[in-house]
Formats: sequence, structure tokens, C-alpha cells
Amino acid sequence: MKNRLYFNLDSKEEKEKAFQAIKAEQNSIGYYSLPQQDISPILEYCDSIPKEIETIAVIGIGGSSLGAKAVYEFIKPVKELTRKLYFFESTDPINITDLLSQFDIKKTHFLVISKSGNTVETFSIYKYIYALQDDASAYTFITDPDASLDKYAKEINATMLPLPNNVGGRFSVLSTVGLVPLALCGIDIQALLSGAKEIKDSFFESGYIKDILLKKAVYYAKNHNKYSINCIFTYSETLKYFSEWYVQLWGESLGKYQRHSKSNVGVTPIGLVGPKDQHSFLQLIMEGPRDKSVTFIKIENFGNNMTIPDIKLPYLEALDSLNNLSFSKLINMQCNSVIEALLEQGDIPLDTITIKGVTESDIGSLVFYYELLTSLVGELMDVNTYNQPGVEAGKIILKKKLKDR
Amino acid sequence: MKNRLYFNLDSKEEKEKAFQAIKAEQNSIGYYSLPQQDISPILEYCDSIPKEIETIAVIGIGGSSLGAKAVYEFIKPVKELTRKLYFFESTDPINITDLLSQFDIKKTHFLVISKSGNTVETFSIYKYIYALQDDASAYTFITDPDASLDKYAKEINATMLPLPNNVGGRFSVLSTVGLVPLALCGIDIQALLSGAKEIKDSFFESGYIKDILLKKAVYYAKNHNKYSINCIFTYSETLKYFSEWYVQLWGESLGKYQRHSKSNVGVTPIGLVGPKDQHSFLQLIMEGPRDKSVTFIKIENFGNNMTIPDIKLPYLEALDSLNNLSFSKLINMQCNSVIEALLEQGDIPLDTITIKGVTESDIGSLVFYYELLTSLVGELMDVNTYNQPGVEAGKIILKKKLKDR
Repeated sequence: MKNRLYFNLDSKEEKEKAFQAIKAEQNSIGYYSLPQQDISPILEYCDSIPKEIETIAVIGIGGSSLGAKAVYEFIKPVKELTRKLYFFESTDPINITDLLSQFDIKKTHFLVISKSGNTVETFSIYKYIYALQDDASAYTFITDPDASLDKYAKEINATMLPLPNNVGGRFSVLSTVGLVPLALCGIDIQALLSGAKEIKDSFFESGYIKDILLKKAVYYAKNHNKYSINCIFTYSETLKYFSEWYVQLWGESLGKYQRHSKSNVGVTPIGLVGPKDQHSFLQLIMEGPRDKSVTFIKIENFGNNMTIPDIKLPYLEALDSLNNLSFSKLINMQCNSVIEALLEQGDIPLDTITIKGVTESDIGSLVFYYELLTSLVGELMDVNTYNQPGVEAGKIILKKKLKDR
Repeated sequence: MKNRLYFNLDSKEEKEKAFQAIKAEQNSIGYYSLPQQDISPILEYCDSIPKEIETIAVIGIGGSSLGAKAVYEFIKPVKELTRKLYFFESTDPINITDLLSQFDIKKTHFLVISKSGNTVETFSIYKYIYALQDDASAYTFITDPDASLDKYAKEINATMLPLPNNVGGRFSVLSTVGLVPLALCGIDIQALLSGAKEIKDSFFESGYIKDILLKKAVYYAKNHNKYSINCIFTYSETLKYFSEWYVQLWGESLGKYQRHSKSNVGVTPIGLVGPKDQHSFLQLIMEGPRDKSVTFIKIENFGNNMTIPDIKLPYLEALDSLNNLSFSKLINMQCNSVIEALLEQGDIPLDTITIKGVTESDIGSLVFYYELLTSLVGELMDVNTYNQPGVEAGKIILKKKLKDR
């Protein structure tokens, strides 16, 4: 991965403070140790799932689905996978009906993923599907050990895989939550972890990424009022769901009451996909309020030689300059042109991340890079990066409504 | 459609001024007259496409694809359609390869949609596909009359359907741009227009929607600095692509230099889908900066009786309160719970839009409602709602890069 910043605000003291805080966090926050985990228990579990199972369906929402979806949708178009993966993430009955029509329930293994074990969406869907398929061997539960869901799984003799300690939902993609569905579909989870480990080592062992991540985090945190919106602009359709994962990670981690001032802070995440969003959101970045920082994410090698053929179209000669150009070159030229146009504005903080290709290792790096960046910005913004107290109020109101009906 | 505002800022003068401006705009801006157009030429054209054609593929980007996609994805899960619809919107070679693997090119009719006739994405993809399928009868071109693309279409003896006058891309879903692909797939485009016409009439003939739209527009425009982000939170997966359409409409129309002050203004659009985004973005709305207004969009009747079965799960008795509840009731209860939780905060401007069901008429209403709202807010924010000068700089740089390579 390469990362180039087009802004600068170098504060040695702030950077060192943030680095030490993150170093210390490793003792209490679980996600830092995930890249070097031993995956043999997961692979062993995967071998126990019969070959006849064609489909894996995750019943889970938010942190229980977004990470696996991001990796799966990134890899799916370029690799022959062994199984299809579906996600039940909504109580929308039209969506559930639609999903169920797309696969054979008898050849499906369901992964019910819930940290708390009482997620309304997950269990309303689970109950519905359980009424259609009540064979306990068709289900695996992923939850906290000793949670009520763990007890339930044991009661019905279904497999339960534990969540590791102190790993919150939105930081859980490299734990059982993401690794199990991905491995079941033939994704190389060891390569995924290796990509993450590269970034981890580079950060903690003073490699290339340490200084750049610290610079970026300090800049974002110092300017969180001015640049209150952070856009990632990925130049590849395959990163569309990575964007959705990033939106949860960033929004839910940083949108908080500050620990000391108690004031409402946060940086609003926006996931854009190029070149499509050049025809949608770009106008607003170019001429709208100067409240946005933008990170472009490019793929160096698409592993695809598709080329625009040498066809001249009458009256459309202006487009002949496209002939014999490969699409992968074109899309990166489009990205570079937009970057140059924005740099000319002079007052929009930009940076570019370039990943090498479309492989598990590349997406693993990107995931861990964003997790580290989030932890750093959270620390510097003086928020608790790892909780989400703001979503409780709605849950309590719903619980009351359900009781009173 | 019902629309309820939970904020108030009533300025008779501002409202009247905006209303008169929009009334006057009807002479110069084309989209206002689309709801009452005669669709018989479109239906006649559709009859000319052979029954053996199973797939329609749109080659178009931004305003040439987002509207049809929004309507198609809304209706598809609830109606048996006659053909499948695909969209080529990216120069990502992996995406093009992936799309081409999903249908039989010999049984496909391609709609090449470009207002200008020189969109880089559209023509690089068109050239690639034309090399695979060079039968001119497999293509229909939708463009401005007398544009170079019109001349090209005539040259190769392909059908060309004109764009109506003065209808910009992002306001074109109810013109040939959206209606042709939708009608070819069996979507009831007359119902779509009727839904739009209901809102149009209610607005211009002083019905229910007039006062509420004016109030909302005045509030958003007056507070565009304070509430610089507008979220729509749709409680249905079927509105996911409507959100993407809204993001383009809102972002590209309002993100501009002001006409008089020349300063950078805009309101950043964010499309959220519930209940999924309760587990992602909601935390940021609840505890983050007070820079967001939120519109909830609900569906009254999902036309689906799916019910959570009466299953008691050992150790998970807390979830028994879900039993015998229909999913459509549950999802609306979830929405109402979040609304109540946000209202308790007291400082987040909210409103709710409720559409009756999942029909063409409902989405037609929603489309026209948002088009009117955008025009009103643009007028009040003193921007030119209908241009997009900010995207030109990147295009010029790309053109130079293409020439120089």
C-alpha cells in the first residue's frame, strides 16, 4: 500500500501522544491482536461443513455483516469461490422474501451472528427461518462465550463459535465474525490476515505507515470542526461495500460526546465510488462548502487487460483518443484528473491510497489501516472510540412498544 | 403521501417568493411538464423491441442511470417483470467483465444514453460492447436531437429517441431516459407519471403538499450553514437506490457558488437505510455534531404478511415479545422508536414522509416531491440548481491526458 498526503500539519508532540495511547490500548482492546491469530480452529470448523452445502447465509446486522460483505464483494468478481454468501440484515419483509427466493434452503448453512445475543433484527429473522428449517445442524452461532445465545446453542446441540474478548462489532471483521463466513466461501483468510499484519507491523515497528497515519490522524482531529466530513472516493466498483463498512467504523466510532468537554463531536463519513460519483457528488466537493477532506483509493493493478477497441465512430471522432487504452489505465487516469482538478482548488485536504491489486492481502491491509486510523483519530478527538451509547435510547423505546402491543 | 414536519419556521414572504420563482421556472425548465406527457410514442417504440429480447442493458452514467435504477430496484422485488435490467456505469474492467457474464448478449437490447454524446465512460463501454455485438438493431440511442450522437445513430441506421428540451440529467428520470428502460421491463410508466402528477398538482394548485414543501424548503435554506448535512433515512431496502438518486439530485444541484455572493454553499446529502443504519450511522446522528437534518421515509403497507412465528427459544425468552408480529409492523415500529429517540434530543430537525405502498405511483410521487424540494431549496439558496460547472475541470484534464498519451 502507498499513501500520499497532500496536506501537512506536523506536530511531533501530538503524534507521539497518540502513538503511545494506541500502544497502550493493545492491552485492553482486542482487535489489535487479530492479525497474528491462529486460524487452524476456524479452518477445522470449515472442514466440518458438508461439501453439499452450496450457500452460506449470515443472519446478522451492522458489525456482524458489513465486514464480511466488504471482503466478499471485493474478491467475488475476481476469484472462483466455493460457495455463495448471502446476508440477512433487514427486517424489511420484501427483502427477506427476495433473499429466500435466491437459494435452496436445504443446501444452506446459516451463521447467526450476534455479540449480545438479543439483536431484534437477527432473532426475528432467525425465528422465521427456523420455522422453515428446524435442523440444528444447519446453524452455527457466533456470540460471546456464556452469553444467553451460547446457552441456547448448547441446548439445541448446535455449533457455537466464540467471539474473542474485547472486540467490538465494527472492529470484528478479522475475528470469527468475518473469517468464518469468508473461509466457508473459499476466501483465503490467511492472506487477509497477512495483509493486515503488514500494516500493523509497519505501524507499531516504526515502518513507513507509522508517520503517515499519525500525520493524517493529527490533521483530521485538529480540524474536526472545519473538515467535519470525510469522504473516501474509491476508484473501483469492487470497493463499494468496503465504503459501507468504513461508514459504520468511522461514524459510530467518532460520533460521540467528548470525554472531557461532553460536547457533541464527530466527523461524518461518506463513501463514494468513482468514476460514477464524478457524475453525482463531485460538483458538491468542487464548489460546495469547504467542510470535506477526501481520500482517494486506487487499485494499481486490476489484473484485467480489457482494452477499448480501435473503433472509429462517425461524428464521434472526439472519442478516438480512447482507442487502444486499457480500462484499468482509463479509470486511474480519470481518478488522477479529478485529483488534479481538486488540488487546483487549493483548499481541500486530499490524500491518495494505492493498493496493489484485488487480493485478500490488499483488502486486509486496507481494513487494518482504517481501523488504526479510526483509533488514532478517536484518541485525539477525546472520545471513547469503542462504545455506542447513542443507539440504546431507540432500543429501549422499541422494547417498550413491543411489550405494550 | 403524507409528510409531517417536526420543526417550524414559517415565513410567509419567503414561501411566496419561492413559490412564484418556481411557477415562473416552468417556462424554462423542462422537468415540470414531464408528468403530463403523452407516453404513446414510448409504448409504441417498446412494441418494436422483439419478444425474444430478455435483457435490457443501459450504458449510461449519473443522470442517465440513477433514476431508472431507483425505480427498477424499488419495483423489482414485488412485481413479475418482463425483462431484466442491467446498468453499465463504470469503467472498472472488473465490473464490466462481471456484468457481461450475467446475461446473454445475443438476447440483449442496449440503450446508450448520453445527453452530450461524448461521455467518456459511456463510449468506452459502448465501443467495447460494439466489438462484441455490431448489429445496429441491438442498440437504441437516447440523446439530444441534432447532437453528434444523433447523427451517428442515423448513420448506422439505429433507433434514436430524443431527450426533451431543457431537462438536465439528474431531473430526467420521468423522460425517455428513465421511461424507456423501465417500460421495456414491464414497469407501469403511466402509473409512475400519475404519482408524480399528484404531487405536481397538489403543489401548483395549492393542495396539501404546497405549504409543507415551502415550509421545509425555507427551513433548509435558512439553516444551510447550521444544518449543512441532510440525511434521508428510508425504512425499506427497496429504497436503497432511490437514496443514490437523491444524493446526486441534491448534491449536484445545491453544491455551488452562490449567484450573488459567489461563496461556496451546499447541503451534503446522505442516504441511509433502516433498520440497518441504526447499527451504523445512528450513533453519529444521536451524539455527533448538530449539523444534520433527517427525513424518515416509511412505507405504510409493504403488501406482505410475513409474520414472526410463535417460537419460544430457551434462554432467549426476552425475544418472545417479537412473536406473532408481522415484519412490516416491526420495521415501522423500529422506525418510530428511532424517531422518538431523536425527538427527545430536541435539537435535530426531523420530518417523516410516509408513502402508501410499493407501487410505481408511490415512487413517482417521491421522485417529484424531491425534485420540487430541490428546485425550491436551490432558488432560496441563490444557486443555479440546473448546471454543474464544477465537474468540467476534471474532464478537461482527462481530455489532455488522453491526447498526450
